[in-house]
Amino acid sequence: MSEKRTEISELGEFGLIDQISKNVLLKNSSTLKGIGDDAAVLDSGGQLTVVSTDLLLEGVHFDLSYTPLPHLGFKAVAVNVSDIAAMNAIPTQITVSLALSNRFSVEAVEALYQGIRAACDQYGVDLVGGDTTSSRSGLVISVTALGLAKKEQLCYRSGAKVNDILCVTGDLGAALVGLQILEREKQVFLSNPNMKPDLERYAVVTGRQLRPDARMDIIHELRELNVVPSSMMDISDGLSSEIFHICKASGVGATIYEDKLPIDKQTFDTAVELNLDPITCVMNGGEDYELLFTIDQKDFSKLEKHPDIHFIGHITKAEEGKYLVTKSGTAVALKAQGWIHF
Amino acid sequence: MSEKRTEISELGEFGLIDQISKNVLLKNSSTLKGIGDDAAVLDSGGQLTVVSTDLLLEGVHFDLSYTPLPHLGFKAVAVNVSDIAAMNAIPTQITVSLALSNRFSVEAVEALYQGIRAACDQYGVDLVGGDTTSSRSGLVISVTALGLAKKEQLCYRSGAKVNDILCVTGDLGAALVGLQILEREKQVFLSNPNMKPDLERYAVVTGRQLRPDARMDIIHELRELNVVPSSMMDISDGLSSEIFHICKASGVGATIYEDKLPIDKQTFDTAVELNLDPITCVMNGGEDYELLFTIDQKDFSKLEKHPDIHFIGHITKAEEGKYLVTKSGTAVALKAQGWIHF
Repeated sequence: MSEKRTEISELGEFGLIDQISKNVLLKNSSTLKGIGDDAAVLDSGGQLTVVSTDLLLEGVHFDLSYTPLPHLGFKAVAVNVSDIAAMNAIPTQITVSLALSNRFSVEAVEALYQGIRAACDQYGVDLVGGDTTSSRSGLVISVTALGLAKKEQLCYRSGAKVNDILCVTGDLGAALVGLQILEREKQVFLSNPNMKPDLERYAVVTGRQLRPDARMDIIHELRELNVVPSSMMDISDGLSSEIFHICKASGVGATIYEDKLPIDKQTFDTAVELNLDPITCVMNGGEDYELLFTIDQKDFSKLEKHPDIHFIGHITKAEEGKYLVTKSGTAVALKAQGWIHF
Repeated sequence: MSEKRTEISELGEFGLIDQISKNVLLKNSSTLKGIGDDAAVLDSGGQLTVVSTDLLLEGVHFDLSYTPLPHLGFKAVAVNVSDIAAMNAIPTQITVSLALSNRFSVEAVEALYQGIRAACDQYGVDLVGGDTTSSRSGLVISVTALGLAKKEQLCYRSGAKVNDILCVTGDLGAALVGLQILEREKQVFLSNPNMKPDLERYAVVTGRQLRPDARMDIIHELRELNVVPSSMMDISDGLSSEIFHICKASGVGATIYEDKLPIDKQTFDTAVELNLDPITCVMNGGEDYELLFTIDQKDFSKLEKHPDIHFIGHITKAEEGKYLVTKSGTAVALKAQGWIHF
């Protein structure tokens, strides 16, 4: 009898998640939402609890040759807080588990926690638990974040309606371009250790890659403005891929406009320097951790003047598809690129 | 300027946890209990939510040369459910994050999830999220478990009072002895691949190591009998170490009796075969995931006849210390051995 062997790369990350999810049955009445959004939603009788988790591995998600440990600690918390923000919830607690090889000293662990505590302070979350263990090789960081929201505040991926306006916060593509710069400078350094990398002029893009910020500021502002997005998620895999997620979950299509896409000047210039198409960086670059959300047209006037929210397009019927209208007026079908982990 | 480097092994696991915890300030009113018990306790306005997390690494926590993947999946869930049980809470949800190298096929992931789902079924928990990513080398599993309890049901480590009775469930030492057998058979196999290991006769001890059970049955029975332990934790690092934790958190001492310690016949016989002292296995063997708890004397009659709860001693004043009274009547001071991860 020969056993079947299917490579994970044949399925891809999303295929693997589908495979895992399809046999999952929910049994508890306290489980309002399981796998399939930025966070799970649980009901213990008071406010709803949202839970999200991320696993970060050295050599896969970060490279310690150019990542300062405090930045890494901050980022590990921020990316989880970003998932809580994407549910329109307020983060309250995190757990942090670490696996450390003997390469790491107590001082190195302290440097990592310095960043973790800085993020806890910035986002107002409490570090309430975790696990520490030894590792044979690299550093592993597993963070779980919890948050609270009232039922009427929660934003799922599935709530976008035809004619809703598609919004993104901040600017996109910087983290991808920053990663390319860091990788380039690492290669330069490896081939000539006397070269000192000049990263000053790339501070915006490398900063976005190394120490991204979760947009809790936007979540608090939306509450003050009394706007509840109809759908929301954070942009971790790239704008194009996330639009696919919202369209699939909501059963809708979308049209976005190239001239509305937000890109920082340094991101644009650095992309050009690297022979990358800036719009491709915006559409497919992951890890910016900005928010993508949809609002009802009636809420537009409340956000219209916001300096950091950009209105990039609108929701259409599913049969109208998903398109990017270029500056020349051509409609190009979107592709769900996303990150390829496997 | 020379930078100071302190090895993690100088601090040990508990020292490292103390180091991490000491700078942690809790800011949220929803955080009732942070680091320092089997699980954190959160209040969202309804029932209390308890949260616990564990990180398992190949080569550190498990050896795939003798661990079937479904057993591993089951164990990863069970050890987290055991932490929830140790709070006297009912587990409700888990998240499971995996890092997989290309050594693992889709079928291997499915085998792992078969065990995860079996544990979800057995303990009535919902798999509500996680993260899947690639790994450069070994398998990494990070599980977070959530549970619910009413405030008056929760059991902390800190509630033991003088004259309370110390209880343990099941029997102890089996997981440690099982691990020794599995390691021995692995070495035999490595030196002669034609040798087929005879594990049948060690089924109890190897089964405890490979697929331990969380004692949710006891938690449900305690509720039916209307007994709320004054303190509780699960035995993951060894009885002696856990008694130290309860005594420290509660500000008490303890006396236990060798002739009351529960050990399975197979554990005893196998320990002798391996030239191990059976009582040392009971006192310092970890990973049995039985429950250690204290009850008020008034509750003794409710549990007295329970076939799987053993009354091993009692709580004393802190200044009376922590002692094991041997069969010959000698009082031996307990040592907090525990597992050495680093």
